[in-house]
This record gives sequence, C-alpha cells and structure tokens, in this order.
Amino acid sequence: MMKVVQHTVQLSAVPRGIHLISSEVIRSIPELEHCSAGLLSVFICHTSASLSINENASPEVRTDLDYFLDRLVPDGFDGFKHTLEGSDDMPAHVKAALLGTNLTIPVSDGRLSLGTWQGIYLCEHRNSGGRRTLKLTLTGDFSRSI
Amino acid sequence: MMKVVQHTVQLSAVPRGIHLISSEVIRSIPELEHCSAGLLSVFICHTSASLSINENASPEVRTDLDYFLDRLVPDGFDGFKHTLEGSDDMPAHVKAALLGTNLTIPVSDGRLSLGTWQGIYLCEHRNSGGRRTLKLTLTGDFSRSI
Amino acid sequence: MMKVVQHTVQLSAVPRGIHLISSEVIRSIPELEHCSAGLLSVFICHTSASLSINENASPEVRTDLDYFLDRLVPDGFDGFKHTLEGSDDMPAHVKAALLGTNLTIPVSDGRLSLGTWQGIYLCEHRNSGGRRTLKLTLTGDFSRSI
Repeated sequence: MMKVVQHTVQLSAVPRGIHLISSEVIRSIPELEHCSAGLLSVFICHTSASLSINENASPEVRTDLDYFLDRLVPDGFDGFKHTLEGSDDMPAHVKAALLGTNLTIPVSDGRLSLGTWQGIYLCEHRNSGGRRTLKLTLTGDFSRSI
Repeated sequence: MMKVVQHTVQLSAVPRGIHLISSEVIRSIPELEHCSAGLLSVFICHTSASLSINENASPEVRTDLDYFLDRLVPDGFDGFKHTLEGSDDMPAHVKAALLGTNLTIPVSDGRLSLGTWQGIYLCEHRNSGGRRTLKLTLTGDFSRSI
Repeated sequence: MMKVVQHTVQLSAVPRGIHLISSEVIRSIPELEHCSAGLLSVFICHTSASLSINENASPEVRTDLDYFLDRLVPDGFDGFKHTLEGSDDMPAHVKAALLGTNLTIPVSDGRLSLGTWQGIYLCEHRNSGGRRTLKLTLTGDFSRSI
C-alpha cells in the first residue's frame, strides 16, 4: 500500500561545523520499518545550514570538509555586499547553495539503503545558527510486516 | 489517494544572474492545494542553468552568490578545452554541476513547506541562455479538501 | 496504479574521471516504459564518487569538469588531516559533497524526461575506486500500456 508519512524535527543547536545526524533522523521516523521500498526526503528549512551525505567513520572527514568550505568561502569574503547579518552570513548562504538543502535516500526492507560508509551530515555554517528544523517525507510501499 | 501530477513550464528568458521564481513555480501547479502531504520535484532540462533554494528577501544575496560563482569559475577559465560555444559556456556547465538541476521540496497541507526565508532560485549562467524549461512533478496524497 | 520499483546496479570499475552512464541506468530499469508519470532516483552508495547531470555530447565537457574539480580540490590539499587512505581520498570526499550522491529525474510517458543535452554522469574521484553500486528507485503511476 502506497503512502506518504511526514514529520517535522527540531534539532538541538550545534556549534558551527559538520555533525553526524543519521541516528537522529532514523529515530524521528518510526514508520520506516514498515516501508518495504521507497524514498526518504530530508529537507532543511534554512538558508545558512545544509545537508550532505558523506563518510560516517572518521571525524577528520567532517573537520576537513568544514575546513575546505571555510577556505573556499572565507568569512568576510572580499566583494560581498550582504554583510549586515555578520561576516559569516553570506558565506553560509553560499555554502548552503553548494551543498544543498535536500537529501533523497532510498529505503529498502524497512531501512535506509545507505552504503557502508555513508552517514547524514548537518552542516552548520553560522557561528550561532540556533535550532534547525528538518522536514522528513517518506514515500513508498508500506506493506512490510514486522 | 496517492497520485502524480506533472507540468512542463516554459520560463521567460532572463539575464545572466540569479532570479527568484517561487511564485511562478507555485502558480504553475494548481493541484498543489489538494495535496495534503507529498514532494514537489522541480527539474531544469538544461546544462548551463541551475536551480537552488536560498534567501528570498535581500536581492544582495542573489547578486553575491552570482558574484561568488563568477569568481570561482571565471569566464574563459584557464585550461578549459570546451570553448567553441563561448567563454561563458563551460563555466556555466561547471556552475550547473555544483548547484544541481533538481530541487525536491516537501509539501504539507496544500503548500510548499519552505522555511520562512527560503525561495526558489533560477540560476542563469549564460549571457544569452534564452527560455528555460522546467518539469514539475508533484507526488503525494491528494486527499485534502478545500 | 501507483507503485515503487527498485533495483541495485553494480557498475564496472572505471578510471578516475567523469563517465556517461545514461544508457546503463536506463537499461537497468526495464519497468520504466510502463511508467506514465513519476520520478527516478539514482543514488550512489559511496562517499568518494558522485553523480551529476550535464552535457551528453562533447567529451571535453567531462574532461573540463574533472579538470576544474582537480584544480578546486587538488590531491594532497594543504591542511587536510584525513590523509591515511591516500592523497586522493579526502579530495574525493569533498568533490562528492559538492556534486552530491542522488539524482532525481522526472519520468513521462515511459521515458526519462531529460533535456536534449542532458546525460547522467558517474564522477569517479578516486584513482582506484573499484566497482560502484547504484540504487535506482522509480516511483510513479504505472498505468501506461505499451
């Protein structure tokens, strides 16, 4: 039976940087185990934080990715005009544009069908971004008995 | 009742730069108000223009993002071989690869479930890109009475 | 009739660089021709290779895009700490974050609704990435008679 399930998730505030949130996402959508095949959309309702899927093991991958983004779009980037909200604001918008606001993840047999090394990243690009809201939408066939 | 609704949208030609198209997208999919929960995919059928979700208020965010992309991949980028179609062509392909060709946006209670500050951007990377075609696909539960 | 169809695809190992895989993707999902309207998700289950949609004609676009990515995130990027798995490993993670792990493509009348010049790219960011696994998920209305 095809259906859609939707949840809004309020994440706790995190420091600027990249954070693994796979467990928190999975915990927030208990209907997942009934989904035999489908897609989970994870959408972040903000313009200065973003989502990514990347290596879930070494924390260095997260710090290196964040370091690269800071090198690519440094705070106070020369030439930016949108500076009223702080030197980290417009760079945060650019980083969010490059990484994106939505992840689409396949679901099979009641589980996210991620590769062995894949985890879900919350990328917080502001110094004080505060709490972030995610919208989770799971679409698929919910005929799996457990 | 689960269903899929699809529309093809021809946008007017716009100058090179970044343009807000949220209203035009929403207007093009009147079935949206009947969708209680689902996902809207906005897909651009081109390789030198792209789509993004970012700040909908300050026009400076759009000019700064475009300025950053031009700094990152300047016209006539040194070393590019694909130069026959103009010095803005291959940089446009690179920018489109970085920003992406599809947006997936959650739908709840007949509306796009965007954050307060989120708008839909058409990113025109060519000097004379001409009209661009979008494909809108709305999948979800259409049981909402209005 | 709404439904979900899912396939796992093992790609052959390819050299580092960017490769067109449109035909291979389409061949792997024979149910496509029965889908009147829907969405195909192509997901790569890895963190050092990525997917993109871009120009399908000139091979120079693929070499130029790869060249740009190598200029943006050179092997052995100064300051990276995650270097144990080789000088091409952490740059591969960064490139994968910038390009993304999922493509969402509209389906209409039994075919991918790509623009004339759009093709599906496998972006192999490792020197020896080996075989890569894709998960294809097609959701939509399968009422098309052929």
